[in-house]
Amino acid sequence: MAEATAAAPDLASALIAENFSRDPAGLLQIGGLSLTALAERHGTPLFVYDADLLRRAYRALRAAVAGFAEVDYSVKANPNPAVIRVFHEEGAGAEIASGAEFDAAVRAGVPPQRILFAGPGKSAADLDRVIGGGIGEIHLENREELLRVATAAERHGTTVRVALRINPGATAQGGAMRMGGKPSPFGFDEEELSEAVAAVEGQPRLHLVGLHLFAGTQGLKAETLIGQWAYGLALAAQIARQTGRPLETIDLGGGLGIPYFSGDATLDLDALRAGLPPLVETVRNDPRLAGARVVLEPGRYLAGPAGIYLARVLAVKHSRGSRFVITDGGMHHHLAASGNLGQIVKRDFPVVAVRQGEGASPCTVSGPLCTPLDVLARAAPLPELAEGDLVAVLQSGAYGLTASPTGFLSHPTPAEVLVDGDGAVVIRARGA
Amino acid sequence: MAEATAAAPDLASALIAENFSRDPAGLLQIGGLSLTALAERHGTPLFVYDADLLRRAYRALRAAVAGFAEVDYSVKANPNPAVIRVFHEEGAGAEIASGAEFDAAVRAGVPPQRILFAGPGKSAADLDRVIGGGIGEIHLENREELLRVATAAERHGTTVRVALRINPGATAQGGAMRMGGKPSPFGFDEEELSEAVAAVEGQPRLHLVGLHLFAGTQGLKAETLIGQWAYGLALAAQIARQTGRPLETIDLGGGLGIPYFSGDATLDLDALRAGLPPLVETVRNDPRLAGARVVLEPGRYLAGPAGIYLARVLAVKHSRGSRFVITDGGMHHHLAASGNLGQIVKRDFPVVAVRQGEGASPCTVSGPLCTPLDVLARAAPLPELAEGDLVAVLQSGAYGLTASPTGFLSHPTPAEVLVDGDGAVVIRARGA
Repeated sequence: MAEATAAAPDLASALIAENFSRDPAGLLQIGGLSLTALAERHGTPLFVYDADLLRRAYRALRAAVAGFAEVDYSVKANPNPAVIRVFHEEGAGAEIASGAEFDAAVRAGVPPQRILFAGPGKSAADLDRVIGGGIGEIHLENREELLRVATAAERHGTTVRVALRINPGATAQGGAMRMGGKPSPFGFDEEELSEAVAAVEGQPRLHLVGLHLFAGTQGLKAETLIGQWAYGLALAAQIARQTGRPLETIDLGGGLGIPYFSGDATLDLDALRAGLPPLVETVRNDPRLAGARVVLEPGRYLAGPAGIYLARVLAVKHSRGSRFVITDGGMHHHLAASGNLGQIVKRDFPVVAVRQGEGASPCTVSGPLCTPLDVLARAAPLPELAEGDLVAVLQSGAYGLTASPTGFLSHPTPAEVLVDGDGAVVIRARGA
Repeated sequence: MAEATAAAPDLASALIAENFSRDPAGLLQIGGLSLTALAERHGTPLFVYDADLLRRAYRALRAAVAGFAEVDYSVKANPNPAVIRVFHEEGAGAEIASGAEFDAAVRAGVPPQRILFAGPGKSAADLDRVIGGGIGEIHLENREELLRVATAAERHGTTVRVALRINPGATAQGGAMRMGGKPSPFGFDEEELSEAVAAVEGQPRLHLVGLHLFAGTQGLKAETLIGQWAYGLALAAQIARQTGRPLETIDLGGGLGIPYFSGDATLDLDALRAGLPPLVETVRNDPRLAGARVVLEPGRYLAGPAGIYLARVLAVKHSRGSRFVITDGGMHHHLAASGNLGQIVKRDFPVVAVRQGEGASPCTVSGPLCTPLDVLARAAPLPELAEGDLVAVLQSGAYGLTASPTGFLSHPTPAEVLVDGDGAVVIRARGA
């Protein structure tokens, strides 16, 4: 295959083999539909998501953690209501991070009581919106917020179910971006857990139902996740001991990663499943935990692999020994692929040519913006390309369009299309 | 002053002394208006720009380069039509990078013939829009684009004035982000200048009027800029020798920097002025250059210092020995301040407290998003702060709102307000 340069298939080839296909002419397809035809019909740049891949990721994870946890969807990864709806139809509730995400989840059909709200800076306006809308649970991150939620509950004449988000101690860490064990703006430090529990218990309008632990993101190793989850259960038990009541919710966060770069491993769901029995035992043996709903709420893991960002080649420039493929797509739609969304190692997202060509040599895929930052891939092994050809950035279903500076240089925003069954539906119009 | 921590005033204090003021109660003002009152009236987060500072920057630069170059405004830095209008009223034409930026400039009152279009990925649709709109000049970046412009000119039955953008050789470099002397997607390599000239001259619908050189961005040293401009004049002379015609335009790009970090120097306009006489001589002594309009088209330099990003404190958290000030503003509005817009050295933008308090100790100013990337400043020396207080990110007039992932977590976009004379006008409504 054109995109293979080493003896072992590279990440792009492996992903195509697993999730996509090529037609007899070698043209890349998604969900059995031609990306070339989709680009013709909907224009480029274009985000395309495959509903079957969304479902497949959800079902695989749910099966792996069955008997231990439920799987909700973290809306921030891709807040398009059509994407949320696919997961909700599979059984997922929603984790949201703003009032607008609450609205998106409700629009997608998620019942408000299946929605939980996390995030370190919840405004009074957003709290009014979600409490007024009947949200299921709010996860508290600091003292000021605790009081803001209590005040908002008072305003609405209601009681709000809350959980404490805990910034864990130095153990049970992992993931490319560690979010615990050190000073952090997120949640209450584990050292002050007891005080935080007492503070919530002192608020008549707040009903403490559980714990939220988010120990890291982009975790690709099962043993790391298992360790973090075990730690979360221990903290949950501590809360329950203090309140003397059974917990109702144990939110172990998201943090399940997907491979972006050629050195990345895929998370091994079998290994994850194999590591769960001790956790299941822990829950079962503690009467204060046995009735709790254990929740995972990944976003990237569920939505990322299902999406492709399509861009059309505008020019191919050979400059001082290097080949530049200049496309109409760039960092204004896909900041993460440009390496400017905080990836610790800024290597390259998997990028392939839609039309399978002969040979492959490294090139830089750059965008239309007037900045050297606007690069979608460096040293991508692509075949010969010319004006009008299409390139596809894989793993683009999460933290793509909505995590990008779409106003930069004022280009129109791309359309988003959802492929489902035999058809493709525009789920966000170009320029909308 | 609270923000001074060393013997020499730090950048924030120097900027406040130069551009802003504090009222008798110690509250920060912009253009003589209270930031506290503006935050009350327009909500937070909020971008505020001072029209007088925009004008002052424009006039100072125009005075420094008088007799050598005109100063246009690069719209990409801040495409709000009200901002473009301020510069246009001072005499600036506009450099644009997309069809939508063309529309914004026209809406701001810039005559189409005073607009020039640069950028490595101009689409056929954008070319139709600007050629149909009567644009003054299009700067060509590669062969495919050259033909696209010729074809579009043919479609419109017109002749288009074009300049060649040149990626210069290894000499005359500088700036924090070098854009020449190496392989690059931008412009024609200097080595193929002669071929490129011949290619344009072979197109009856294209009228070659000049050169565009952009050698680097964020240049803080006068001598570096002078060197780059001298290089540009030499390339211009080369083009004119080949065509045998006088040049009409020599666009020396933008690239004038502003200080963001405490180690940064301010560009010395006196030194810039002192370096110009040899360049003026060069132009005057070459009959093919003497009649050309020499253009500088900075964006950041003109708009950056005039803007403040205001955010309100939601919580203050002391975690494991560190102080976190959690605000309602963050990287979704100000990606550059979070260090995720490709700053080579990710230090801190100048951030100050609006209410001048006693003492100052380092803290992290973080935003409301669920990601450790959402940090506006690390180790900012701020006084004691509490929920409800305001913090101001200085140097935020360029590459702020429109260079940020505003859709990330779906918070409403902040309003933009322009302070001018005694009043403040909303130039972009909240959530628009």
